[in-house]
Amino acid sequence: MLELLSEHRTFGGVQRFYRHESKEIGLPMRFSVFLPAEAEQGAVPGLFYLAGLTCTEETFPTKAGAQRYAAEHGLALIAPDTSPRGAGIAGEDESWDFGTGAGFYVDATREPWAGRYRMYSYLVRELVALVTGELPVDRQRLGIFGHSMGGHGALTLGLRNPELFRSISAFAPIAAPSRCPWGEKAFSGYLGEDRDAWRRYDASELVARLSRPLPHPILVDQGEADSFLADRQLLPEAFEAACKESGQSLTLRRHPGYDHGYYFIASFMADHIAHHAAILKA
Amino acid sequence: MLELLSEHRTFGGVQRFYRHESKEIGLPMRFSVFLPAEAEQGAVPGLFYLAGLTCTEETFPTKAGAQRYAAEHGLALIAPDTSPRGAGIAGEDESWDFGTGAGFYVDATREPWAGRYRMYSYLVRELVALVTGELPVDRQRLGIFGHSMGGHGALTLGLRNPELFRSISAFAPIAAPSRCPWGEKAFSGYLGEDRDAWRRYDASELVARLSRPLPHPILVDQGEADSFLADRQLLPEAFEAACKESGQSLTLRRHPGYDHGYYFIASFMADHIAHHAAILKA
Repeated sequence: MLELLSEHRTFGGVQRFYRHESKEIGLPMRFSVFLPAEAEQGAVPGLFYLAGLTCTEETFPTKAGAQRYAAEHGLALIAPDTSPRGAGIAGEDESWDFGTGAGFYVDATREPWAGRYRMYSYLVRELVALVTGELPVDRQRLGIFGHSMGGHGALTLGLRNPELFRSISAFAPIAAPSRCPWGEKAFSGYLGEDRDAWRRYDASELVARLSRPLPHPILVDQGEADSFLADRQLLPEAFEAACKESGQSLTLRRHPGYDHGYYFIASFMADHIAHHAAILKA
Repeated sequence: MLELLSEHRTFGGVQRFYRHESKEIGLPMRFSVFLPAEAEQGAVPGLFYLAGLTCTEETFPTKAGAQRYAAEHGLALIAPDTSPRGAGIAGEDESWDFGTGAGFYVDATREPWAGRYRMYSYLVRELVALVTGELPVDRQRLGIFGHSMGGHGALTLGLRNPELFRSISAFAPIAAPSRCPWGEKAFSGYLGEDRDAWRRYDASELVARLSRPLPHPILVDQGEADSFLADRQLLPEAFEAACKESGQSLTLRRHPGYDHGYYFIASFMADHIAHHAAILKA
């Protein structure tokens, strides 16, 4: 059951914000959807966007400038929130990189996070079914992309569910979370110290162990002036090496002068939407 | 003297945020500038954007999606703040439509606002000189546009300074402020009860009394589902009638289903930038 919170006409389509009671998380969750004009005639391909640390379901529709390109290609855009809200867990609001706004797209197994912080299953099982069941979005033509923590989410959800998400891309993803401070903090907290459990949520580990490459290349854009690249939080070179290992086709573009923010993302949004449209509309 | 606060590469150019000590206002003021790649070679045409109630110098670069089009046409974009900040005047933070965030692009003559709330002179005299003096922006090729309160600002500054701002457009402007609740509140507060003093800041009054039409048409976009249109805060029909009276060419487009927000603005941004580029680069 979807509750429509607001609706705005844009680029000939409509930008909507919804709330619903999540079974996986046990709390109300919000997400945004852009539907192009073509959705008035029937189901259209859908592209899920996962946002980064501290973001919400509003960040992408407000700042990324993607609706124009989605309207041109006739794609829907779905942007969930980045964590449960108001779970009431002690310490959930203490860090900007853990807890609220920082669900890291995993199913937490460690208390007190287990049972609420289940962003992986929420997205793969619940939100996909809800969006494709209740809205004119075609379950057979879904793609996924995201930024930073959400780039990590897009790569891991996409690699683990290639039959569900047929196209994958990322902006400045946390590409090897088991080997960077953000990922180590999040995975320790949500999953505990057993590093074997981390592998299922680490894009570089997943891609290295692919039994066969995905049928389409993965697109990754990375700004060279990104301070988190310098801090070794992102590690695109680890993902690149892992793709080589398994023969996965990767288009990794490094952009001199660009930083980590939405001014970078907006600059290359047209290419990402075109990448997904070419695969999903083939 | 400009203090560079931050800088982000975007669409092959650069988005910057500056602070400076304003002589007209007597306080520090902030503004944002997008410079296209062409600005590395020399001065480029510049387009001033005035934002609406509650906005800041960040609203336009974050939400409007204009940099892509400015990059395509080789234009600079300059977005000032919407009022003085921290003037310390009793009551300045009490209303969202008066005082802080609501300078209404006038020079206040009524105490306690006079002396600080001088957005008209700040823009026309100080900021234009600063931007064209310190940055690669060509003073001979300037245009102005804006949204809502900022649409009122763009129309009034443009109509009163046609030699300075050669091209004018607006999104959902407060087009006859002397006749709407927002304008009556602001003008009473900043200018007092002498309605003759209001005329110099009312686009419909100004355009009706033009001694000769401007050489180029004014472009105005208005969403038909804009709740402030229904509330009779915007009154585009008054501006349209006034343009007819003086023979001023006006392209007024009414868009079914579109509301007052940035999803509307972004949808028609390409047309506005093209309108200004055609005039400024002729």
